[in-house]
Amino acid sequence: MITDDRVEVHLNHLETWLRYPSVSADSQYHAEVVACAEYTADRLREVGLDVTVYPTLGFPVVYAEWCHAPGQPTILIYGHYDVQPADPLELWETPPFEPSRRDGQLYARGVSDDKGQIYCHIAAVEELLKNTGRLPLNVKFIIEGEEEIGSPSLAGFVTEKKDLLAADVALVSDTPMIAENRPSLCTSLRGLVYLELKVRVLSGDLHSGQHGGTVPNAIHALMDILSKMKDADGHIQIPGIYDDVLPISPDTHANVRRLPFDEAAYCEAIGADHLVGEPGFHPFERRWYRPTFDVNGIWGGYIGEGSKTVIPAEAFCKLSMRLVSNQDPHKVTAQFNAYLKSITPRGVAVEVIEHSGGFPARVSSDHPAVSAALGGLKQAFGVDPVFQGEGGTVPIVADFNRILGLDTILMGLNLQDDGIHAPNERMSLANIRRGIDASIGFLELYSKETVNK
Amino acid sequence: MITDDRVEVHLNHLETWLRYPSVSADSQYHAEVVACAEYTADRLREVGLDVTVYPTLGFPVVYAEWCHAPGQPTILIYGHYDVQPADPLELWETPPFEPSRRDGQLYARGVSDDKGQIYCHIAAVEELLKNTGRLPLNVKFIIEGEEEIGSPSLAGFVTEKKDLLAADVALVSDTPMIAENRPSLCTSLRGLVYLELKVRVLSGDLHSGQHGGTVPNAIHALMDILSKMKDADGHIQIPGIYDDVLPISPDTHANVRRLPFDEAAYCEAIGADHLVGEPGFHPFERRWYRPTFDVNGIWGGYIGEGSKTVIPAEAFCKLSMRLVSNQDPHKVTAQFNAYLKSITPRGVAVEVIEHSGGFPARVSSDHPAVSAALGGLKQAFGVDPVFQGEGGTVPIVADFNRILGLDTILMGLNLQDDGIHAPNERMSLANIRRGIDASIGFLELYSKETVNK
Repeated sequence: MITDDRVEVHLNHLETWLRYPSVSADSQYHAEVVACAEYTADRLREVGLDVTVYPTLGFPVVYAEWCHAPGQPTILIYGHYDVQPADPLELWETPPFEPSRRDGQLYARGVSDDKGQIYCHIAAVEELLKNTGRLPLNVKFIIEGEEEIGSPSLAGFVTEKKDLLAADVALVSDTPMIAENRPSLCTSLRGLVYLELKVRVLSGDLHSGQHGGTVPNAIHALMDILSKMKDADGHIQIPGIYDDVLPISPDTHANVRRLPFDEAAYCEAIGADHLVGEPGFHPFERRWYRPTFDVNGIWGGYIGEGSKTVIPAEAFCKLSMRLVSNQDPHKVTAQFNAYLKSITPRGVAVEVIEHSGGFPARVSSDHPAVSAALGGLKQAFGVDPVFQGEGGTVPIVADFNRILGLDTILMGLNLQDDGIHAPNERMSLANIRRGIDASIGFLELYSKETVNK
Repeated sequence: MITDDRVEVHLNHLETWLRYPSVSADSQYHAEVVACAEYTADRLREVGLDVTVYPTLGFPVVYAEWCHAPGQPTILIYGHYDVQPADPLELWETPPFEPSRRDGQLYARGVSDDKGQIYCHIAAVEELLKNTGRLPLNVKFIIEGEEEIGSPSLAGFVTEKKDLLAADVALVSDTPMIAENRPSLCTSLRGLVYLELKVRVLSGDLHSGQHGGTVPNAIHALMDILSKMKDADGHIQIPGIYDDVLPISPDTHANVRRLPFDEAAYCEAIGADHLVGEPGFHPFERRWYRPTFDVNGIWGGYIGEGSKTVIPAEAFCKLSMRLVSNQDPHKVTAQFNAYLKSITPRGVAVEVIEHSGGFPARVSSDHPAVSAALGGLKQAFGVDPVFQGEGGTVPIVADFNRILGLDTILMGLNLQDDGIHAPNERMSLANIRRGIDASIGFLELYSKETVNK
């Protein structure tokens, strides 16, 4: 197990990394994102890896490898050095890009998503190289800078560098553990379709007094359309959308019900009166194994101070669907567009803009790396890990399978309430330490596992 | 009839007035609004009136009178010197506060709403005083600077200055004529209730992947509420809201159908495929004699560029109802609140903010000033005026009736498509000239009408 001194060394390195405001979504930080890529490369060289920074149309991909263990398996470790925007800044207790340790937590934008998590594997590799002069297997890192803007360059990069990235299994730590002190391996991720709608019913806004009662209103037209997308129980009304959704297996059904979940505590934590969604499914089933439809943003008409009596000509929304099992984002987008066309009222012009999307992913639990990962986690945390699903989307996991034929070990090291994408993002110092130990254990056990076979 | 030379003198005065950017809604123009009040007062002194500028908690009320015709009736003429904001500036062909004459039109912010219209009456009074040394009756002007922000000081001012403002009839030119070359007197105005809703379902935004399928979404909650406010035909669903709406009389029904209205041309002008609203009512009936419910603005969740996968904790809208006949905005607000409470789903917190409101108004067509106004318009335009209603709200008309016991002559001098509250606001030079002549004719005829009785 790693010593206190070495943990302190690694926390200092991590904090240096966290000081880069590598916000990929905001053009004013572009130079900082690029500088962060360079720092990432320098750090990986310092660890003892062969590093190449690959430019893309967007931000660079940092690639690093140690491939001097012939006959041993190769593991491809993915992470991202870019972070979410930090606003609203006024809600941060300490500045987002000045890492702060307090109450057993490390606070900073990106500490949990994803710098702190991927850093655990960098530290593990450094510890092994430092202590033994070598690694028990071959390791390849691919650390991108566009994850928070939908990874526009990554699938192309993976396709182009198929040979370079060849491996036996992938490892991603970009999802949460099921609960504090309860490590878990994640075996499924949801996919995503994210669209924007623009509705127009008039050539310009009209005065609600002079015209009201005779003319269409774009906000009402948009609400009419959106009201037909989902019923009161949360069932999506788009024809065919459930065709590729697999039924939940008895094993999964039983596993979900064994996992820790305190509905009252969850409601209190998020400030909800009660949970919603499809009846007959456990909340984890609704979150991991069922598709969703949510309006993520809406705007139109007068949204300034006070009152302005306009009938709006245009209204807009952003909406997204989370996809599961065999659903295909392209097919779902086509189903959405066909349904939209069928329900759009006469005289309403609708434009659809496609934003980011991603395939759902499932990971086979009988891969030899799975038992090594379970063993590494058990060594580090001292308790048996469990299997879980994940409601979010990590499109690269589906891409690794589709393009490289790889299964992915999803070893979550942060917690659900670490505030990713929110103010006061954090990761517990204990989990950073245990994450390093779990990664060391995993690399060692996976090597032995393969030898034993 | 007024001469070309005198029209030119008046256009120059009006253009000077229009150069003041008297935008009451925007704090950066506050000094300009006050300067405009001072100019208004100076101009009315120059015309030959006794002028007092009354401060209020907001912008001053300019009062002016000529009361030297004992035994003759007194007319109270209302207008406003403040204007709407001019943005979007880039859509103006000439700058909004640099009046420009072209193609028989005078372009400037506020020319039609309301400086050009009220100026016709100022010019009429100046012409009469200049030509005859006196007026045929007593005239009082009340010109406010807060009309475009809902006249917050005016009702209080009128109540306080009840004796000062005593008159036989009021005259307001702040509504449009029914069509070009077809003067009209307006006999009803709609009232207004304008509210803002804030809906909350969570203590903060959540990640749509990690939580989607289990948690409420504020935008969906707001849409649920709004979808229950109006049916597909435009009937408002708030219980009791039609209780005080009077049926449309056979005379009104017949009059409406005699008025010029080209539905296809109207649809083309506003860029609508077709008109909407309650079946069985003529568009003018829906616009003048039926209440409406419109969402004027909506916002919530992520409304920036690209995509952000949030489930919004809060959503907001601005909404308004236009009221008719005997409807009372306070009673309607109470009915709305009661209904809102009854339809708000469990777990949804709704806050209601009341913005501006106003009573509807009706004007009796048998007032002696009505025939004088019809006569003045006929002299000036050379065609018979018609009666019409108006869908907008001029709360002072209801206040004059409620507080001062006055009927109001609503003598519209601009056109529906003059672009009030929009870029390239205009008023036709011909209508400014005919407006001055109509006002002179009205003042003379009303005096004679009263003498004859």
